[in-house]
Amino acid sequence: MKVQITLPNDVYDINIGELKQFNFDTKVVIVTNELIASLHLDYLLKHIVAKQLTIVKVQDGERYKNFDSINTILEHCFFNKLNRSSILIAFGGGIIGDMTGFASAIYQRGIDFIQIPTTLLSQVDASVGGKTGINNRFGKNLVGAFHQPKEVNIDRYFLNTLPKREFSAGIAEIIKMAVCFDKEFFDYLQKCDLGVNSKDLDNVIKKAVQIKAKVVIDDEKEEGLRAALNYGHTFGHVIENETLYKKYLHGEAVGIGMVMANQLSVKLNLMQQNQANQIKSLLEKYNIPTTYEIEDINSFYNKFFLDKKSQDDNIKFILPVGIGDVTIKNDIAKDDVIYILKGFNK
Amino acid sequence: MKVQITLPNDVYDINIGELKQFNFDTKVVIVTNELIASLHLDYLLKHIVAKQLTIVKVQDGERYKNFDSINTILEHCFFNKLNRSSILIAFGGGIIGDMTGFASAIYQRGIDFIQIPTTLLSQVDASVGGKTGINNRFGKNLVGAFHQPKEVNIDRYFLNTLPKREFSAGIAEIIKMAVCFDKEFFDYLQKCDLGVNSKDLDNVIKKAVQIKAKVVIDDEKEEGLRAALNYGHTFGHVIENETLYKKYLHGEAVGIGMVMANQLSVKLNLMQQNQANQIKSLLEKYNIPTTYEIEDINSFYNKFFLDKKSQDDNIKFILPVGIGDVTIKNDIAKDDVIYILKGFNK
Repeated sequence: MKVQITLPNDVYDINIGELKQFNFDTKVVIVTNELIASLHLDYLLKHIVAKQLTIVKVQDGERYKNFDSINTILEHCFFNKLNRSSILIAFGGGIIGDMTGFASAIYQRGIDFIQIPTTLLSQVDASVGGKTGINNRFGKNLVGAFHQPKEVNIDRYFLNTLPKREFSAGIAEIIKMAVCFDKEFFDYLQKCDLGVNSKDLDNVIKKAVQIKAKVVIDDEKEEGLRAALNYGHTFGHVIENETLYKKYLHGEAVGIGMVMANQLSVKLNLMQQNQANQIKSLLEKYNIPTTYEIEDINSFYNKFFLDKKSQDDNIKFILPVGIGDVTIKNDIAKDDVIYILKGFNK
Repeated sequence: MKVQITLPNDVYDINIGELKQFNFDTKVVIVTNELIASLHLDYLLKHIVAKQLTIVKVQDGERYKNFDSINTILEHCFFNKLNRSSILIAFGGGIIGDMTGFASAIYQRGIDFIQIPTTLLSQVDASVGGKTGINNRFGKNLVGAFHQPKEVNIDRYFLNTLPKREFSAGIAEIIKMAVCFDKEFFDYLQKCDLGVNSKDLDNVIKKAVQIKAKVVIDDEKEEGLRAALNYGHTFGHVIENETLYKKYLHGEAVGIGMVMANQLSVKLNLMQQNQANQIKSLLEKYNIPTTYEIEDINSFYNKFFLDKKSQDDNIKFILPVGIGDVTIKNDIAKDDVIYILKGFNK
C-alpha cells in the first residue's frame, strides 16, 4: 500500500506493508539505537544491499536529542566519506527520525534520508512530513530544519516488540488526528479494540497516514493548517519540560495536553463536556494518562512562552471544535487558561 | 542600484549603494564581531529601527566558524524569545554571513536573515546565493544549509576600514569570476587600478554581483554550473587546511589555488601558458600570493578526499578553458595532479 506526498520541491512515497528490498548504489549510514539494533538490525540488514554500509548507534531518549548526538552522526558520515549522493537511514522511533533527518539536512548542506520507523507513533506521525530537529534547554524541537525524506517505509513487523506504553502513546496521536480532522474516523476508533495484531490496525495506520499526508501537502511549512496537529502539544510540551522529558512518553504528554485543551474548548463553548468526556474515555481505554498534578500554576503558565509556537506575547492554542474540527487561537485570555490549569492543580 | 535574484522559492534584492533605512516591526538580532562593531556599529544602528534589537558578537576567524559560535547565536535568539517572524542580520565578512545564515536556517526550522557584508570578498561573493555553514575538523563548510537571505545590502562605505590584504582577497574572487565566465570583464580588470576609492570599483562590484547572481539563479543547489565558482577552491581548501586557517585569508588561498588549477589546465591543453601567466600577473598586481611550498605531496593529495566536492574516489577539479570559460572534471589522472603539485614542492 502506498500513500504519495506531493510537495512543491519533493515527491515521495510512504510504503505501508512488509519492508521492501533496498539496493543502493551509494554509501549508506543507518542511524539507530542499541535497543532497536539488538531487536531488529538483522531483519533490516537482510533487506539492504549497499556500496558501503555503516551503523551508527545513538543514545536513546529525548534528553539525548541534542547537538552531541547530531555530531556523533555527522562524524561517522565524515569518517566514512559520505558524499552528496549518499543516504542516511533513520531506523527507530521519532527521536531517531528527527535527528537523522536533521543530520542529513545539514551534512554537506543536505543529503537524502529514508525513514524506517519502528514505533506506532513515528509510523503514523513523525516519519511523515519532513520536520526534523533537536531539543535544547529552552524546549523541544527548537533547532532544526524542514527536510523531507526520500521515502518512508512502514512495516508493522517492528511493532511486535514495542512496549505497551509506547503502543498506547501512538494511539494517542491517532486519536488526536481523528479529533482534529475526522469525526467518522473517531467513531470508528471508538468501535475498535486495537492491538499490535488486531486486523483493524492496518486500516487505522493507513487512515492516520492519509490524514497526516493531506495536512502536510496543504501546509508543508506549518504556516496554517499543519499547526492544528499541535493539538495537545501546547500543554504537552510544558508537561514534558516540567518532568524533564523523563516521566512521560511524548504521546502520553500529548494525551494529557489534549484533555487540557478540551477543557479549554468546553470553557469557551467550542465543545460540549460530553464530547470532551468521549475523548477522555477513548484515551483511558488505552491507558493513556489523562491527569496531571500541576505544582505551580504560574510557573506552568510562564512556560508556554518558551514554546516555539508562541507569537511574541500571544500563546497559540489549538482547540477542538466539537469532534472532527479544530481552530487555532492566539487571543485566549490568561484568566481562562489559569481557570483550566486550576482544574489540574494539586 | 539593484540586482534581483529570482529562485523557485525565493526572490530577493541585492541593493548596491548607500545603506537603506530599516524599519522592522519585529525583533532583530545583529550578529557581528568585536572589530566590526567597534568600527561600524554606530553607523549601522543609525539606519535601523526595530521592535527589539540585540547585538551578538562572535569571535573573529575561520577557526571560530563552528558549532560553538552557532550555539552562541542561537542562545541569544532563544533568550530574547525570537519567533518565526524575527530577523537576524549578518553584519561582517563572509564568516559572519555564513554563520548567521546557518543559525537562521536552523532556528525554529528557519527564519529570515539579511546580509550586510562589510568586506569586498563577502560583498561580491559570499553574501549572495544562500550557501551557509560552518567548518569542522574534516574541512571547510562541511556542515550547513542552503538558506537564501531576505535581502543583501552592499555599502562601499565599510571598505574604508578594510585592511589592504583583505581588499586584495576580494579582488582575487573577482578575478576568479572573470576567468570563469567573462573574458571582457577580465580585459577590463587588466586595465583597472582598483582601490577602495577608485571610481572603477563600483562597476566591478556590480559586474561581479551580476555574474554571481546569474550563476546562482541557474543553479541554486550547486548541481552543475555553480560548482564552477569553486575554481581555485579544490586546491585552496587543502592549503587552508594545511595552514590551519591561520596563514592565509580565504581569498588568498583561492588565489594560490587558481594558479595551481591554471597549471593543471595548461598541462591538459585547456589553456595556454601565456593565459595562465596573465592571470598570475593580475593576481600579483594586487599582492595576492601565487606561490606555496608543499611540504609533503602525498599528504597534500590525500587531503583532496576530505573535500565535500569529492565524488567517492574522484576529485572534482574546476579548470579554466582559456580565459572566460571553465570546465568541471572529475576524471583527472592522479599522475597529472601530482605533476602539478611537484611544481610547488619545497
